[in-house]
Amino acid sequence: MTRPQTSSNIAAQQGTLAVEDTGYVAGIDIGGTNLRLALADRTGTVLTRRASSTAGVRGADAVMALIGDGVRGLLREVAAPPGALKAIAAGAPGITDVDAGIVIATSYLMGWRDVPLRAMLEDAFNAPAIVDNDVNLAAIGESWVGAAKGVRDFVFLAIGTGIGAGIVLNGSPFRGMGWAAGEIGYMLVPGVMDTCCAHDGPGALESMIGGEGIQSQWQSLWRTDGTALPKNLTATEIFDQALTGEPMAQTIFDQSARMLSHAIYNMNLVLNCPLFVMGGGVGMHKGFLDATQSMLNLQNMQTQTRLRCSTLGTDAQLMGALRLALDAAGSALARVADEKVQRD
Amino acid sequence: MTRPQTSSNIAAQQGTLAVEDTGYVAGIDIGGTNLRLALADRTGTVLTRRASSTAGVRGADAVMALIGDGVRGLLREVAAPPGALKAIAAGAPGITDVDAGIVIATSYLMGWRDVPLRAMLEDAFNAPAIVDNDVNLAAIGESWVGAAKGVRDFVFLAIGTGIGAGIVLNGSPFRGMGWAAGEIGYMLVPGVMDTCCAHDGPGALESMIGGEGIQSQWQSLWRTDGTALPKNLTATEIFDQALTGEPMAQTIFDQSARMLSHAIYNMNLVLNCPLFVMGGGVGMHKGFLDATQSMLNLQNMQTQTRLRCSTLGTDAQLMGALRLALDAAGSALARVADEKVQRD
Repeated sequence: MTRPQTSSNIAAQQGTLAVEDTGYVAGIDIGGTNLRLALADRTGTVLTRRASSTAGVRGADAVMALIGDGVRGLLREVAAPPGALKAIAAGAPGITDVDAGIVIATSYLMGWRDVPLRAMLEDAFNAPAIVDNDVNLAAIGESWVGAAKGVRDFVFLAIGTGIGAGIVLNGSPFRGMGWAAGEIGYMLVPGVMDTCCAHDGPGALESMIGGEGIQSQWQSLWRTDGTALPKNLTATEIFDQALTGEPMAQTIFDQSARMLSHAIYNMNLVLNCPLFVMGGGVGMHKGFLDATQSMLNLQNMQTQTRLRCSTLGTDAQLMGALRLALDAAGSALARVADEKVQRD
Repeated sequence: MTRPQTSSNIAAQQGTLAVEDTGYVAGIDIGGTNLRLALADRTGTVLTRRASSTAGVRGADAVMALIGDGVRGLLREVAAPPGALKAIAAGAPGITDVDAGIVIATSYLMGWRDVPLRAMLEDAFNAPAIVDNDVNLAAIGESWVGAAKGVRDFVFLAIGTGIGAGIVLNGSPFRGMGWAAGEIGYMLVPGVMDTCCAHDGPGALESMIGGEGIQSQWQSLWRTDGTALPKNLTATEIFDQALTGEPMAQTIFDQSARMLSHAIYNMNLVLNCPLFVMGGGVGMHKGFLDATQSMLNLQNMQTQTRLRCSTLGTDAQLMGALRLALDAAGSALARVADEKVQRD
């Protein structure tokens, strides 16, 4: 797709700066519970943003309608002239063919199969679009302006409801032959059920230390062990209880930290990539991150593994999307954004 | 290091073909039990080879003396004129800094630390040298003329006494930030002891399904279970017994295949690289490979993992070394060798 042909004409008619200088890019993070959108200028500075719930919204057309409303709303907020949107990038929670612009399969939560999301975005906005896996986008975001800024090799590890890794090697996302590199929610480490997991359900590791896995362990212990605490706690609430010394929560916390340390250790063995940036609600829990780091410190690796908390938090995907949108908009915009980051 | 200056003069004096056309390359595989050497012409065709035992030979100087004798012997066999050796490449059983030409650390079996092997080879032979990890060399060999010929992404998995993976991504060896990618003998999968292994001893996976691990499991079962078979069987003999239905051997065989399938599954999750070329005495055992493939077939991956037996066998490292030596000798030699492979 070529850039919109109207842009420079409009700028010329208005007698203002060329649209190449004043254009915008949009970044979109399609999550299982929230849709986040941001509009940035050519330096990558976020000008405005919004979020809406995706609860009950599952189909690609329904999500596209939300995206359309959201992006048009953002453009209105900055009084953008037609053609001012230079590019758009979106992250989807699933395996995504970046070259073809197709979301091959999302996790069991959304159930997308072979959705031509890039073409849908380009049709909707008449601007070049790019789509990628959301965890890869988070890795790109952290690499650009976050916890891994300037690091050539690292893994972004998202632990929320699901678990996934975004792998950056030699400064570029490593996506794998079938776009499925880093799908480590299925990893088999000591302590998981090593009977086969169906690939359309939660993976072996995910079902133990993903958010819902931790909750369901709490609920089964709650039935048998008994505790004064409520049955319905979130994973991070359970971890908070563990840090206060609650024994049942401590059991789950210790076991989760041990399994996570095993998974990280295994990844470092394969990739020899010692920096892990931790994201997601579970992964960013400070006490949990510290406990996992302590367990990794006991393992005598050739290169010691270091965990670092995400600095972008829930914005990591969005920042990665903006970075890719700047790339898609053309090298001039991306260069300006890079120069700004280097100055910061 | 520049090429030997004497070469073209000697060729001119002799009135023969230019040495660029008649030169040789040497490949060396330094193993824990054997030193293998081969001399090839500019097409990569092996002209002559020899092997000698490294039993009791541990120090780098002692190994260099063996290499010196061996390579000079090979050159004499083909009546090579002085300066005819255009390049030499060697694989060492340990973590190797290819850029610096230094063997950082070999496995616990040899105990090398920071050995400047490339400089030692260049001093000894007055020719450009290159050094790499032996499993990476095997991957390069299989990629060039073996089971992964023409495949852009695959893992060579060596299972002998030790276990290691040589990873090829986008047609090039992926060696990792600290040259230690693929050190998966330490991988933690269900069934291994998940207490920490010292990094200078056998790894968790290695101590279960490496050759010695399998032997020692046999020996401990032998003490308690009793069997008419001898106590000292090799790993492949134990696997052969399993295939005849011997129950104690079957227990070890099934458990080993299950653990290996878990390790391969984990690597494929990280790398999304479905082809694994199996090397080493244990890895190339046909019945064991088939059993591991069957277990992998039960796992519902995005991309089904395929195991393929090494076609180069114990020559894989040596062929990889010859390939790197052709590269080191200069692009002309490497191009001729590539054209030959494409014709074959």
